[in-house]
Amino acid sequence: MTAYRPTPRTTPTRYRERARYDRKTVHDILDEALVCHLGYLGAGGPVVLPTTHARHGETLYLHGSTGGGPMLAARAAKASGSGLPVCVTATLVDALVLARAAMHHSVNFRSVVVRGDARVVDDPAEKSRALRCLLDHIRPGRAADCRAPNERELAATGVLALDLVEVSAKVRTGAPVDDPEDVALPHWAGVVPLRLTAGTPAPAVDLDPATPVPSYLHP
Amino acid sequence: MTAYRPTPRTTPTRYRERARYDRKTVHDILDEALVCHLGYLGAGGPVVLPTTHARHGETLYLHGSTGGGPMLAARAAKASGSGLPVCVTATLVDALVLARAAMHHSVNFRSVVVRGDARVVDDPAEKSRALRCLLDHIRPGRAADCRAPNERELAATGVLALDLVEVSAKVRTGAPVDDPEDVALPHWAGVVPLRLTAGTPAPAVDLDPATPVPSYLHP
Repeated sequence: MTAYRPTPRTTPTRYRERARYDRKTVHDILDEALVCHLGYLGAGGPVVLPTTHARHGETLYLHGSTGGGPMLAARAAKASGSGLPVCVTATLVDALVLARAAMHHSVNFRSVVVRGDARVVDDPAEKSRALRCLLDHIRPGRAADCRAPNERELAATGVLALDLVEVSAKVRTGAPVDDPEDVALPHWAGVVPLRLTAGTPAPAVDLDPATPVPSYLHP
Repeated sequence: MTAYRPTPRTTPTRYRERARYDRKTVHDILDEALVCHLGYLGAGGPVVLPTTHARHGETLYLHGSTGGGPMLAARAAKASGSGLPVCVTATLVDALVLARAAMHHSVNFRSVVVRGDARVVDDPAEKSRALRCLLDHIRPGRAADCRAPNERELAATGVLALDLVEVSAKVRTGAPVDDPEDVALPHWAGVVPLRLTAGTPAPAVDLDPATPVPSYLHP
């Protein structure tokens, strides 16, 4: 697959962090991350909010209440004929990295930064598709196994779309990188792997006990 | 403890999400989150970057390369006598929330949003303290068990400070909230707990095998 257009460099590459622009790396991170952080310029300055997202091909969908800040800002931008300039960042933390030197401590992580003008999705077909993607992002298969939104609910839900054009991923993997003169110091060095693990599904108290746990929730 | 000044409402309260302004809730979320997302207005629009952070009392410290985007922007702001307007958001994801209705799917989460003007920390004593806090944020005790930064390293590391003044937390807990008419639908409903778990520490290949795993890395 072809590469994305790089975002402007905001931080220099250091340690074993590597900027990546290939689509598979970007897609995998966006698909694995359960939430992202949406940044935009609010009336009082920058605003960063956690939100759920889903990728459909080369489009990232975000949703929220039609009365929420991002949606109101995007609606206002649309009224003046433009999209809402945003930055959407998804980050996965894979390990703590402990070096002998304070300076070389780090975190193994994978992140994607997407910048661009988000547009409000008003087309009913695209909106429904986006909401199905958001449900399947929770667990693939869920969209087909719940009650679809009715007209009132659809009207109360805002959807933003952001095309994956100006995109970069950054990935740090591996061990700490100490300076040679520090290697013999008596401090422990290495990585502590981290993983987001799912526990046993807990049914709602009012769920019919005969309802089986769906296969898409099995570990 | 007294409460923080609320941030402007950006999204309405819905489901069981509750805005919180008490310091203990805010402190606990900031202290537990391994990374946060720093938003500021870059030359080309909003920028959101993942970064590590640490809280010291009522101050949040962030660090990065002195040549990185946020640090350069903060340095430019300082040169003109001001701080850099930022929004720093830390989010912990606690569970997937599956409702019968598509509309009521959610995520149990705890998040903190801090807004304000970040200042560059140039005072050597405060900078050293901030870096120790950042190390102890990885695991309490680590700051005293590694090689402290030398002058060259200190000079290459930028530290930003953000006072906890305009702060809010948002917390969603508990079960899905379905409409009464949906409760009898045949779809599984409940929560899937999520937890960031640490695996077995993996020593660096060049670590003296006699070096014990420090107690602060024990589960």
